Amino acid sequence: MKNAHKKIGKQTVKLDNPPKIICTTSIVGPKEGDGPLKDYFDIILSDDTNGKETFEKAETSMMYTAIKETIEKAGLNEEDIDYLFAGDLLNQLASSSFAARDINIPFVGLYGACSTMAESIGLASLIMDGGYAENVIAATSSHFSAAERQFRFPLEYGSQRSEVAQWTVTGAGAMLLTHSGNSPAVTYVTTGLVKDYGIKDASNMGAAMAPAAVDTIYRHFQDTGRTPQDYDIIATGDLGLVGKEITSKLLLEYGYDIRDVYVDCGSVIYDNERQKTNSGASGCGCSAVVTCGYFYKKMLKGEIKRLLLVSTGALMSTTTSLQGESIPGIAHAVAIEYDGKLPCGSD
Amino acid sequence: MKNAHKKIGKQTVKLDNPPKIICTTSIVGPKEGDGPLKDYFDIILSDDTNGKETFEKAETSMMYTAIKETIEKAGLNEEDIDYLFAGDLLNQLASSSFAARDINIPFVGLYGACSTMAESIGLASLIMDGGYAENVIAATSSHFSAAERQFRFPLEYGSQRSEVAQWTVTGAGAMLLTHSGNSPAVTYVTTGLVKDYGIKDASNMGAAMAPAAVDTIYRHFQDTGRTPQDYDIIATGDLGLVGKEITSKLLLEYGYDIRDVYVDCGSVIYDNERQKTNSGASGCGCSAVVTCGYFYKKMLKGEIKRLLLVSTGALMSTTTSLQGESIPGIAHAVAIEYDGKLPCGSD
Repeated sequence: MKNAHKKIGKQTVKLDNPPKIICTTSIVGPKEGDGPLKDYFDIILSDDTNGKETFEKAETSMMYTAIKETIEKAGLNEEDIDYLFAGDLLNQLASSSFAARDINIPFVGLYGACSTMAESIGLASLIMDGGYAENVIAATSSHFSAAERQFRFPLEYGSQRSEVAQWTVTGAGAMLLTHSGNSPAVTYVTTGLVKDYGIKDASNMGAAMAPAAVDTIYRHFQDTGRTPQDYDIIATGDLGLVGKEITSKLLLEYGYDIRDVYVDCGSVIYDNERQKTNSGASGCGCSAVVTCGYFYKKMLKGEIKRLLLVSTGALMSTTTSLQGESIPGIAHAVAIEYDGKLPCGSD
Repeated sequence: MKNAHKKIGKQTVKLDNPPKIICTTSIVGPKEGDGPLKDYFDIILSDDTNGKETFEKAETSMMYTAIKETIEKAGLNEEDIDYLFAGDLLNQLASSSFAARDINIPFVGLYGACSTMAESIGLASLIMDGGYAENVIAATSSHFSAAERQFRFPLEYGSQRSEVAQWTVTGAGAMLLTHSGNSPAVTYVTTGLVKDYGIKDASNMGAAMAPAAVDTIYRHFQDTGRTPQDYDIIATGDLGLVGKEITSKLLLEYGYDIRDVYVDCGSVIYDNERQKTNSGASGCGCSAVVTCGYFYKKMLKGEIKRLLLVSTGALMSTTTSLQGESIPGIAHAVAIEYDGKLPCGSD
């Protein structure tokens, strides 16, 4: 009996019934809305508290709105959605859990640090492909000010930022996967291994995550037989300028030159010099809003046909760092493809 | 086209190819090993630091050992396992992530607070049933001392415990799901909604989680057409004495009398009076070790044929509590059934 017939290679699944991403919503804060990708985001907040009394509640409200908007745009109701796969950076997934409290959809909480967007799309796609759902929402969020005080220092301290530090994206992205429609579809899911090469500097997450990104991209190529030339864009989540450089170089050593098609979401969302974001962006929200906003809309316009999204997560906590541990990284990849006509939400 | 043909009702999937739980491992600390279920645990630590320098590293080591032991008992290697679904209570899933760092298996991090064991078994079962894997590990852990200082106060403060407080289980449980073999099998997966009835007392988690347990159990009966009489045991995760009482009563109001078959894992793992554990146990590890130890071994002996495991999670963080939020709860359920002969690991 061939039970795991849908697995190709050790870490990759090829989807027989690629679920379609029929709608997405991207919400960002004012800083992201002032960056190079501003024209691609659906909602730009004028105030990063979004009218709430705390940054954490602001993040929850962004997550909630991203999910609700996506369902509404598709002309569906909460009752039509089988599962919500979501996660975020806040301790105990506070943003996702508190958003899910007000949404009547079976909820599966996920944590992969900043790899969570690809993790949620990947799991959602397997559940869709397997016939367990008609409609699934995958969503993540992050918030600069909430992340700073949880992982580093309260903003009030005015701490100096390291040259290799990254700026957590204030934003939330949600996508709706369904079976029918003519939309970008998820075709492959490559699940990552945890990799730790001993980096201990929590302000240099790009370097900590790069080995995981390299491993997952390499494994994706090995499992699928694809090469960098099969993709218009290969996008890591939030390695920033430092981690991007490492990833390109290491993959070259493994025989894959991805430089022509390589974009790091964390390196394109800000104008790093003007916006003083040092090594670029990070956060679950980073690959979420760049994918739900920028990439998705480029795909609808036919400007990207094949995207490999490789969201990347640094799995440390403040406790593990204080206890002298290094930073494990993980990367999950999903291939999204579209060569067709206009689905819902396009012009 | 009937795409979601495996879904019955709004929240439940009936598995066409019920994955078999061929091996489990339960590891507990000294207190759990001194309780009423001591004869059912595989490994009892004589020291709750497990020889490590911090409680967090002790928890990671328990999670690691539970996973490795389970794979070894089945006569398999890490390379044979397609996915590791795991989560824990520590911020950023430190226990799972750091255990996974030393284990060469594609890792999917989950967070459902103390509902994580049923969440991981449920997702693992869907992935198995769908043909995406030959072998999957589902695992969770918790540690009393690590949880106390993260969620409440460092032990050194000597804080008084509330009468309704629960004692976080020091323990880890892992199970291996596969396709063949004659073992207890996962037959139904009911995914929960987040429910919040306004409880704000973080030392009264049983009351906060009870509405979610009630909702998921009720939904399971509605979706499947089953009744309490179809189960030998219906087990909530860690509602403790207070939450258990609420759950029984509320379900009675909905027309289901589960009292004859109702066990709460958190109410049976300690001798609450002698061990001074007040309202009982809690923690991801609670339903994990009670299921991987006690229930699983009772099933192998034919003493339980049908189990409905309903792990229950309280989704607050210290930040949300300090910000005046109430405590959302969630419960996920899996049905595990066995009427057969002896699989691996039995006498």
